[in-house]
Amino acid sequence: MYDLIIIGGGPAGYLAAERAGHSGLKTLLIEKRFIGGVCLNEGCIPSKTLLHSAKLFDYARHGGDYGVSTTGAAIDQRAVIARKNKIVRNLVAGIRSQLKASHVTVKEDLGQILGREGGRIRVRVGEDVFTAPKLIIATGSEAIIPPIPGAKEGLENGFVLTNREILALESIPESLVIVGGGVIGLEMASYFNSVGSRVTVIEMLDKIAGPTDGEISAILRKNYEKKGVTFKMSCKVTGLPNGSVEFEENGQAQRIAAERVLLSIGRKPVTGGFGLETLGVLIDNGRIVVDERGQSNVPGVYAAGDVNGVWMLAHAAYREAEVIVNNLLGRKDIVRYKAVPSVIYTNPEVGCVGETEESCKARSIDYRVATLPMNYSGRYMAENAAGDGICKVLVDPLRKNMIGCHLIGSYASEIVTTAAMLIETEMKVDDIKEFIFPHPSVSEIIRETIFRL
Amino acid sequence: MYDLIIIGGGPAGYLAAERAGHSGLKTLLIEKRFIGGVCLNEGCIPSKTLLHSAKLFDYARHGGDYGVSTTGAAIDQRAVIARKNKIVRNLVAGIRSQLKASHVTVKEDLGQILGREGGRIRVRVGEDVFTAPKLIIATGSEAIIPPIPGAKEGLENGFVLTNREILALESIPESLVIVGGGVIGLEMASYFNSVGSRVTVIEMLDKIAGPTDGEISAILRKNYEKKGVTFKMSCKVTGLPNGSVEFEENGQAQRIAAERVLLSIGRKPVTGGFGLETLGVLIDNGRIVVDERGQSNVPGVYAAGDVNGVWMLAHAAYREAEVIVNNLLGRKDIVRYKAVPSVIYTNPEVGCVGETEESCKARSIDYRVATLPMNYSGRYMAENAAGDGICKVLVDPLRKNMIGCHLIGSYASEIVTTAAMLIETEMKVDDIKEFIFPHPSVSEIIRETIFRL
Repeated sequence: MYDLIIIGGGPAGYLAAERAGHSGLKTLLIEKRFIGGVCLNEGCIPSKTLLHSAKLFDYARHGGDYGVSTTGAAIDQRAVIARKNKIVRNLVAGIRSQLKASHVTVKEDLGQILGREGGRIRVRVGEDVFTAPKLIIATGSEAIIPPIPGAKEGLENGFVLTNREILALESIPESLVIVGGGVIGLEMASYFNSVGSRVTVIEMLDKIAGPTDGEISAILRKNYEKKGVTFKMSCKVTGLPNGSVEFEENGQAQRIAAERVLLSIGRKPVTGGFGLETLGVLIDNGRIVVDERGQSNVPGVYAAGDVNGVWMLAHAAYREAEVIVNNLLGRKDIVRYKAVPSVIYTNPEVGCVGETEESCKARSIDYRVATLPMNYSGRYMAENAAGDGICKVLVDPLRKNMIGCHLIGSYASEIVTTAAMLIETEMKVDDIKEFIFPHPSVSEIIRETIFRL
Repeated sequence: MYDLIIIGGGPAGYLAAERAGHSGLKTLLIEKRFIGGVCLNEGCIPSKTLLHSAKLFDYARHGGDYGVSTTGAAIDQRAVIARKNKIVRNLVAGIRSQLKASHVTVKEDLGQILGREGGRIRVRVGEDVFTAPKLIIATGSEAIIPPIPGAKEGLENGFVLTNREILALESIPESLVIVGGGVIGLEMASYFNSVGSRVTVIEMLDKIAGPTDGEISAILRKNYEKKGVTFKMSCKVTGLPNGSVEFEENGQAQRIAAERVLLSIGRKPVTGGFGLETLGVLIDNGRIVVDERGQSNVPGVYAAGDVNGVWMLAHAAYREAEVIVNNLLGRKDIVRYKAVPSVIYTNPEVGCVGETEESCKARSIDYRVATLPMNYSGRYMAENAAGDGICKVLVDPLRKNMIGCHLIGSYASEIVTTAAMLIETEMKVDDIKEFIFPHPSVSEIIRETIFRL
């Protein structure tokens, strides 16, 4: 007898549980695999741990421009992975203790929805059946495995990897082919390029980094080409026979050898296998359809995080979870998506928020744009010997507020928070000009760019 | 015959000149030493260049926790200084070209105010006399040289240094004593500790980092003690005989040997030697007194930047300069100082903005406070093996908005921009909670901390 059952213990699930439990709702959280979900165990946090080690390794080898030289720089992949595992364990322990402090009951097993009975939703976990009037689905997403010959066998024998396996690799492959040049593919290209793999990225489209601003996408690609990553653009992978990757380039069949292959063509919501159908929850295009309060077509049944297919980012999941819990507690709240930042933790980093030139054109949104090289920032110059980063700001010409900001360069991942806030609050450009940014900081580039509008 | 004369080509002066020239005012900028001022030539930018090299050197030697090792690491001080000089040259060239693009006339010589005649202020530069109805004083500040026996002789023979000389040192002193544990002293302690000097900081007060939050000041000191810096607190320097520093500790006379001494006890506005008295400009406590529009007691005579003694930070100077120019152009504008960020570019970095617990207590301001370890941020954990950073947020309990935010840890220098914006816009705590911060970022710690209030 619970007030709330949550299926899925990732960012949406554990945060909803914490907030609900903290507010006095008797809450059950069911997680079949890992508390913390993909983000914490097999995604954001592990990859950031690896990428930080790679950054130090790069610094150790390429400090010459800054007057620093080294001999015998080496990276110990086993140590990197061991450290990653330790950090994940610590963070998971932190979440467990938060859940405990919020009086949340946690069951680490598969939850199976049995349907609704007398106003209560029934969920079976092992031998037990639990009930609650409210249910949050937070089952997340999983890597899309395309129906390419060899993919299934490759995954079984370890030749083909997803985000899950690649973040646990204890030896560095001599060659790595990455299928899909989105965020996950690029971050892993960055890591394995730094630690010595010969990396090839195969992308179906003619640009990397998905919906990222085209100019920034091009700068990012140029940076990684310089570092030795090969990009095969507008190419379609046709086969994954053990030890090589077959693909089509300009209608020609090609093949490259690979010790390992990473499949990172995208992720899809996990909606099957746990009884959603018993409640009649509407699924469209593979995702649970929700309103701005996170409720599905079925009253009392909510969905948050990747499973709703809206943004598929941990920080959107957090907010969606909070909105659902606030509404459950009788506080009106909705999710606003106009200022959801997105980050690629490559080196240089990419941080974007709001409209792009491309999205404005596609939706006939009027905009004005200004772009500045990051070298206008003294701090950026001081810390980047040959940096080619940029800052691009889009403004609504009528309402005179910022509607998009796109950064590539150091600290973009942290600076984008400021940009998101400027967009979310709809601050007028003239007011942003009056705002005092710290000097010298790279964040000043936003202000400088605005003065060019 | 100008519309505006500006004396001093640092951040306040060059920015005022650019904005005024860009807006069509016929503008003369007079600089006696370096276009770019102390900040660009002998302050913020040079120090950040050095500190970045030191950071890379630290990473190269201390990557073990992250799985990265080297067999040898070295830093080439001459190369570091050469790079710093190059960056300064590039940035100064950038400012020169901006000034040119804004049609500003630049005279690189001493400007001497001769007085007012027929509504116009007369300024002599070399053989020429120029006039304008408006004058901006932006002469900046200089290091305070205390009347300690040996200081003057030490400065002459190179034993004693200020910020100016230390940023040009081409060899690393075996031992360095830093008199004054403020921002400049600590940043230089950080650099020379990293590159191998035995560093001692002597501070008159019982805390370092001036008005910084006490808890953060203590964490910073602990970090540098661990790295091997010696702090002599509540000690008064009494003499600087060549090769050693004499000071009083608990009433006892002490002496330590030093190859070099850095004097960094503070800075004072430059108000003498260029004829301010001919205009009757009011100087109080060594600084030019200005109103919130930057005007002195004399109509048409303004002061911006360090010379007004208000914040003595480049970013405050920028804003003050803009406000003056806006008012000259008939646009009403005032400087608001409630959200001026301040940063210490040590490692860990410190970023602070708004009220501290200490300032609230001193002024009987009611506040609520929450503090979280930075380790609540997954990214911070991923990138800091033994980080002891914190985030502290102060809130007005009645109006429910943030009034202070104090950070020590990675990216604090960039994250503080977000905090400053939250304070400046007086965003309510409940609205901040609805805001989506990128995950994983260290900036999230602000949101996490707010949820603890």
